[in-house]
Amino acid sequence: MTKELLIPLGGSIAALLYVCYLIYCVLRKNPGNKLMQDISKSVQDGAKAFLKREYTYVSMLVIIVAILISIAPYLKPGVGLGWATSVAFIAGAFTSALAGYIGMSIATRANSRTAQAASDSGLKGALTVAISSGGVMGMSVVGLALLGLCLVYIFFKGEPSIINGYAMGASFVALFARSGGGIFTKGADMGADLVGKVEAGIPEDDPRNPAVIADNVGDNVGDVAGLGTDLLESYVESIIASIAIAGGLGLVAPQLKLMPLYIATAGIISSIIGISYVKLFGRKNAQKSLMGGTYLSAVLTISATYFIVRNFGASYGEYPLLGPFYAAVAGVISGIIIGLTSEFFTSSNFFPVRRLAEKSQTGPAITVTEGLAVGMQSTAVPVIVLAVAVVVSHYFAGPYGVAMAALGMLATTGMVVAVDSYGPVADNAGGIAEMARLDPSVRKITDKLDAVGNTTAAIGKGFAIGSAAFASLGLLAAFMSAARIDIISMKDPYVIAGLLLGGMLPFLFSSMLFRAVGNCAFQMIREVRRQFKEIPGLMEGKVMPDSAKCVDISTKTAINGMMVPGAIVIAVPVIIGFTLGAEGLAGVLIGALITGVMLGIQSANSGGALDNAKKYIEEGNYGGKGTPTHAAAVVGDTVGDPLKDTVGPSINILIKLMAVISLVLAPLFL
Amino acid sequence: MTKELLIPLGGSIAALLYVCYLIYCVLRKNPGNKLMQDISKSVQDGAKAFLKREYTYVSMLVIIVAILISIAPYLKPGVGLGWATSVAFIAGAFTSALAGYIGMSIATRANSRTAQAASDSGLKGALTVAISSGGVMGMSVVGLALLGLCLVYIFFKGEPSIINGYAMGASFVALFARSGGGIFTKGADMGADLVGKVEAGIPEDDPRNPAVIADNVGDNVGDVAGLGTDLLESYVESIIASIAIAGGLGLVAPQLKLMPLYIATAGIISSIIGISYVKLFGRKNAQKSLMGGTYLSAVLTISATYFIVRNFGASYGEYPLLGPFYAAVAGVISGIIIGLTSEFFTSSNFFPVRRLAEKSQTGPAITVTEGLAVGMQSTAVPVIVLAVAVVVSHYFAGPYGVAMAALGMLATTGMVVAVDSYGPVADNAGGIAEMARLDPSVRKITDKLDAVGNTTAAIGKGFAIGSAAFASLGLLAAFMSAARIDIISMKDPYVIAGLLLGGMLPFLFSSMLFRAVGNCAFQMIREVRRQFKEIPGLMEGKVMPDSAKCVDISTKTAINGMMVPGAIVIAVPVIIGFTLGAEGLAGVLIGALITGVMLGIQSANSGGALDNAKKYIEEGNYGGKGTPTHAAAVVGDTVGDPLKDTVGPSINILIKLMAVISLVLAPLFL
Repeated sequence: MTKELLIPLGGSIAALLYVCYLIYCVLRKNPGNKLMQDISKSVQDGAKAFLKREYTYVSMLVIIVAILISIAPYLKPGVGLGWATSVAFIAGAFTSALAGYIGMSIATRANSRTAQAASDSGLKGALTVAISSGGVMGMSVVGLALLGLCLVYIFFKGEPSIINGYAMGASFVALFARSGGGIFTKGADMGADLVGKVEAGIPEDDPRNPAVIADNVGDNVGDVAGLGTDLLESYVESIIASIAIAGGLGLVAPQLKLMPLYIATAGIISSIIGISYVKLFGRKNAQKSLMGGTYLSAVLTISATYFIVRNFGASYGEYPLLGPFYAAVAGVISGIIIGLTSEFFTSSNFFPVRRLAEKSQTGPAITVTEGLAVGMQSTAVPVIVLAVAVVVSHYFAGPYGVAMAALGMLATTGMVVAVDSYGPVADNAGGIAEMARLDPSVRKITDKLDAVGNTTAAIGKGFAIGSAAFASLGLLAAFMSAARIDIISMKDPYVIAGLLLGGMLPFLFSSMLFRAVGNCAFQMIREVRRQFKEIPGLMEGKVMPDSAKCVDISTKTAINGMMVPGAIVIAVPVIIGFTLGAEGLAGVLIGALITGVMLGIQSANSGGALDNAKKYIEEGNYGGKGTPTHAAAVVGDTVGDPLKDTVGPSINILIKLMAVISLVLAPLFL
Repeated sequence: MTKELLIPLGGSIAALLYVCYLIYCVLRKNPGNKLMQDISKSVQDGAKAFLKREYTYVSMLVIIVAILISIAPYLKPGVGLGWATSVAFIAGAFTSALAGYIGMSIATRANSRTAQAASDSGLKGALTVAISSGGVMGMSVVGLALLGLCLVYIFFKGEPSIINGYAMGASFVALFARSGGGIFTKGADMGADLVGKVEAGIPEDDPRNPAVIADNVGDNVGDVAGLGTDLLESYVESIIASIAIAGGLGLVAPQLKLMPLYIATAGIISSIIGISYVKLFGRKNAQKSLMGGTYLSAVLTISATYFIVRNFGASYGEYPLLGPFYAAVAGVISGIIIGLTSEFFTSSNFFPVRRLAEKSQTGPAITVTEGLAVGMQSTAVPVIVLAVAVVVSHYFAGPYGVAMAALGMLATTGMVVAVDSYGPVADNAGGIAEMARLDPSVRKITDKLDAVGNTTAAIGKGFAIGSAAFASLGLLAAFMSAARIDIISMKDPYVIAGLLLGGMLPFLFSSMLFRAVGNCAFQMIREVRRQFKEIPGLMEGKVMPDSAKCVDISTKTAINGMMVPGAIVIAVPVIIGFTLGAEGLAGVLIGALITGVMLGIQSANSGGALDNAKKYIEEGNYGGKGTPTHAAAVVGDTVGDPLKDTVGPSINILIKLMAVISLVLAPLFL
């Protein structure tokens, strides 16, 4: 079987070589003047400090869990876990952590270079640097994930129950990266804004504001590393789920276990082409360039999938031969529709955001209410699309089809992450331009890039939640097969209880994250106020603020804030599995999936709409800045911020992580 | 069988006789001076105008649906619907409408009498009038519901598939009463507050504010008629579900079909005793009196249930003989815990509200965020309790046990509604005291009553959502039995699609209600501003405002706003039943139940907490009125208002109505 894995292995190595090339593209650029480099250095240091502390905690947890997994067979013989699963688990965690580290290291170096490029060669130059940096994150994600997966596959001879551990490891790191990063970024952001902009009346990204560096660090921590590990997890899980489901067929169609790896390889090559397209042909319309690259890689992947499925020539059970291909197409199409829906509800080009801006005239309360309503309404189309895609993909390839649909969506993860994590780089570049007092034209360029980044970020979030739903459904099917559950009857009280409990978890989890963000912001506000008051000469711009202190506050509160909700997510499947049994646990997973998807979409789109309504007003509509309308919109945006950047994304991980833990531990609940 | 129904028939007549007595108790009281009577008359007229228009629309819809039900057997022979179901359906709708009408007529007459009693004989007198009026609503609900049910039962010889139509009729009216009433009350409230208190700076309930009468009408429309019809529905459905499930056993244990009617009778007698207790022994501590009466009637009902179950001596299948009794106890206990949890999260005696008030110091955004977090967090305990109760009640009596648990919770509906709908009367009385410029001591008394009313209202809302969940679970079990579904497999893609679609509905529905409230408030604000500007002498208090115009705006926007969401709720089960089949429909019901319960609890408790945090600040904490902290809390309260009084309660009906429609139409989807 090793020989058959040469192609996916080659694909993953190609991805990593391309990463090296992109890193070279970024680093050879002029990093700007001394001040710009200093600011960039502060952001790098802050990001590194956060990652270091986060990884310290997570590794302790990973080690504990790895030990538990290793000794499980001794505690309950014949359960199938053991050191092998444990090794796969550690490998998954390491892969995810490494991808996050690489992506963030480059992103925090690309910021000043993007600002400098904007100053030297305008929009095109800045776009090239930013997308190269995004590409580093994107291709690291897929390259490392696939490489690790292939190695684990080879080492453990394709045994699904062991490989599942790899996904669980990736999921572990993602949970903490997403929730910790989300708390960090929004706590810092709210703290910086509430004191700086609102109280002290200084502009955004003003160097006098001690929380600005923390805010910039947060963008990288949350939107680069967080997003990257999130999609890495979905990516791995969609592959793993298809392998596990195919494994359930036994030796009838062993090719079905390999096929996902080949499709992933096709996705990697397509993503490389897509990113190169943006780098080569990216012109004035940044949005068009990015979307062009994305569509290009999607079309290439789909075409390649057709040939792969046809050549493998294996069908899932009695389903049609080309079934997996159609299922993958269903996944791709639903991913695009979900993304476009997000754009419709969160872009100021369409009426939901404009109406929201109009309603801001009646004050903050109605703004917030309308913002929540927009998010709630926006769940309809994505959910209908998901439901149809489930039925369609099932029709063509049964449970394997659901996992294939997920994979179809996720094969181009490299491209999607590249486009998505280019945004924070542009945002940071704008911050540096402001702080280093570069020519206003530079800021204009970075603002343009940033605005495009906001839309792509919203699309990316829609994509992330859609793919999370699909990946979880795939994992769920794999879990039921692993736990040998044929029927989950809704007449079973344990299932009903499980559904209710599972449905509650995303709400409880969200409330904790909300609190953590509030707590972080609260401490940040106090610190910024203190510095403004106690550091002489700060407000006059004569001395620099103590930014490191603010980064430290964000780091500490974020790490503290993520521990309890994280522990709950990890503990619940175990507790439920042992009390309500495998059927009850399946109920929990489904319940969490249902409310999680809704809350996830609502949070992301409410937040996005409120953010862009504020920006729309700032462009001069309804009176622009300084009016009560703008003030109302600012309140709305502040409510929306933790929704879209902390709660929403973390819920993706919640539903995936619970599903993958259940899958790995399924033998225990037999 | 008719003879056996004499006891429940007698119970329902006893309830109605008691209603007559309570009406006499209210009407014989002094209605106050001319001005008070005039104001009370305006509220009566407004309420009547709204009800008239609402009932006109609803009856048209009822007639259409009744015709469809009648002709169904001709379209598809052997489906089991037909004119008999249609008659039961109309009877249910009529009963609910009549109960709402009676309760509201008395409540709008009790307001000035309560104010006068407060002035004449202090708190005790005012409490007696208010609770008598609440009792009229409560006992009308149970008396009429049980009377109608017995008649339908006798007339159609206890055939479950026909009797189910009765519940559907009650549910229809409840949907429009709850959502229409909810939009009316909050639109008027927000409109009155935003212009009156915030812009014009005049006090609450100031007679110069043209929206104040509409606001008072809204309290009656939403919190009296809306709540009454809501619980009437749950009450009927819990009985119907147990009958239907028992009917599934065939002739093995026909007593099980009668038992719920006897337990309901016991609940009626206990409620009469409970209300009389409050009337007779209600003293200074209003809260204690009300809770005392509630607990008394719960204990009496439970004791009676024990003897009823023992005497009937029938067990459900192989479950233990006293099983239904234990299941009912589980229902009662979980109802109490859910109510107490609501109190904990929404009363300013406990730390969640106090912390929320403290956070208000950091501005409106964090207030709203924390308010949402409180509501989300508050889902945990009720859901755990529900889950445990499902398992326990199932353990003792299978699916029949779940319906019994619902009935256990709901048997004392008469008392619960009485306690709950006394609040709006006290609130209205305060408004009249203010508008008629009575001695401030009167307002103090009504404020005290009103504050107690807020807590009981929060408990009542928790109770309403808990009982809705149980009633729906009962209906779901009945539906599965009627549609002859043995297994709903989570591997079935139609079920998964159904779960996702169902889970989305409460979100979509909520967004529409939010919009409708916003729309109503928006038009109200414009009208109030217009009147302040265009009516000379209004601000000086020389002429009265045009209140009727405001009532008319609320009425129109409420009726318009409820049509589309209402139509969706009615149409979805039909569409899904015909496309995804009975299994897919079961998925929809479960999905809607899961997200509905969470959203319902969150909405009610977020709103309650935000409201009471504002009141807590108004008591002088954190600076009291006029501070930025208070302003932030007002924004929070305004966001919370439609959550707790429109969205939350309407979701109860959404999940129940879809379940009962599915149950009635089940034969069509076989």
